[in-house]
Amino acid sequence: MKKTIVLLSGGLDSATTLYIAKSKGYEISCLVFDYGQKHRREIEAAKKIARLAKCPFEVITIDFPWKGSSLLDRLMPIPEGKKSPEGIPSTYVPARNTVFLSFALSYAEATGASVIFIGANALDYSGYPDCRPKFYHAFNKLSKVATKCGIENRPIKVETPLIGLKKSEIIALGIKLGVPYKETWSCYEGAKTPCGRCDSCILREKGFAEAGVKDPAL
Amino acid sequence: MKKTIVLLSGGLDSATTLYIAKSKGYEISCLVFDYGQKHRREIEAAKKIARLAKCPFEVITIDFPWKGSSLLDRLMPIPEGKKSPEGIPSTYVPARNTVFLSFALSYAEATGASVIFIGANALDYSGYPDCRPKFYHAFNKLSKVATKCGIENRPIKVETPLIGLKKSEIIALGIKLGVPYKETWSCYEGAKTPCGRCDSCILREKGFAEAGVKDPAL
Repeated sequence: MKKTIVLLSGGLDSATTLYIAKSKGYEISCLVFDYGQKHRREIEAAKKIARLAKCPFEVITIDFPWKGSSLLDRLMPIPEGKKSPEGIPSTYVPARNTVFLSFALSYAEATGASVIFIGANALDYSGYPDCRPKFYHAFNKLSKVATKCGIENRPIKVETPLIGLKKSEIIALGIKLGVPYKETWSCYEGAKTPCGRCDSCILREKGFAEAGVKDPAL
Repeated sequence: MKKTIVLLSGGLDSATTLYIAKSKGYEISCLVFDYGQKHRREIEAAKKIARLAKCPFEVITIDFPWKGSSLLDRLMPIPEGKKSPEGIPSTYVPARNTVFLSFALSYAEATGASVIFIGANALDYSGYPDCRPKFYHAFNKLSKVATKCGIENRPIKVETPLIGLKKSEIIALGIKLGVPYKETWSCYEGAKTPCGRCDSCILREKGFAEAGVKDPAL
């Protein structure tokens, strides 16, 4: 059975990605990051989802003391309303997915996993540079030269099964696979209930509406 | 004044790199990693060197719970004696430099630094894949697509001024620049004095011998 590392944030994209990896028969280890995000409750969601999927997980605690993002900095508000057509919103965390994938690469190499799954999406997304196909192509090239297994011709490959799907298509696929969307958390704010106004809430609401499904978390 | 992030381990290569960056007039912030290495005393060396150079520093604590390296795993001995001509020694930490550079990329972007300096060397080295020029070329390509500043045509560039130098040449250059080699720590073992038998001690000893200089740390 091929081993894989699945990056699990606790949101609906990563939960769907976990179930895609399960449906392909991988032996899965999940990787969860506690990185100072305001919406720390997504970590509890991630743990619960991993347990429901019967997959082991590691929670890595990291610190970005330089912040540089409204997702981390208590002095910067999370933007409300639809994102502007241009520009990258202030919720962008500098080089976050590069950091996350680097840890996944280390985890994969140390445990003999050959694939990393990440639920990045470049269609119904916030415009982050490290969610685009170009970024993952470049990371896969890096993987070949960065690791022992890479230079021994067994490079670890990053897979992004959701990258070209609409949010509604992700949800439709996840429902077929039995993803427990009730347990997922998307809101960027750390409150008890989703704010309904941040980019992540808006994208989620639009996705469920277009899929013609009621959001079971609401 | 251009800002830069210098990765500082506390060893002689990174200390020399710091002084090279200083000599070029950069405004420097140092980045030090506490990553579970057996030779944790290099962290104290790094802090002292940064203070002597009058540069601010951040110490980032990270965990590689999966280990996969004799540099991290107390159950694996550090190899002694000259490295075998082929193969990567067990001190290789899976994807370590990818993780370190990812944090540096985040730090650089959040603080407006345009360059990252790292003291990687691919001549008198242990054979790690992530010390070779190919790795840095691939990382620089990744940097262009991974970050907001990268896609805005202000990519952060990784510089490796030591990559093609012999250890003796690094030391000769460092002496000219006033690097406090007395304060540097190279040994992979965490003992009070250098073991003299690990790869890092052997490379250091050879470097000082070939440079015709007494190692001030001994």
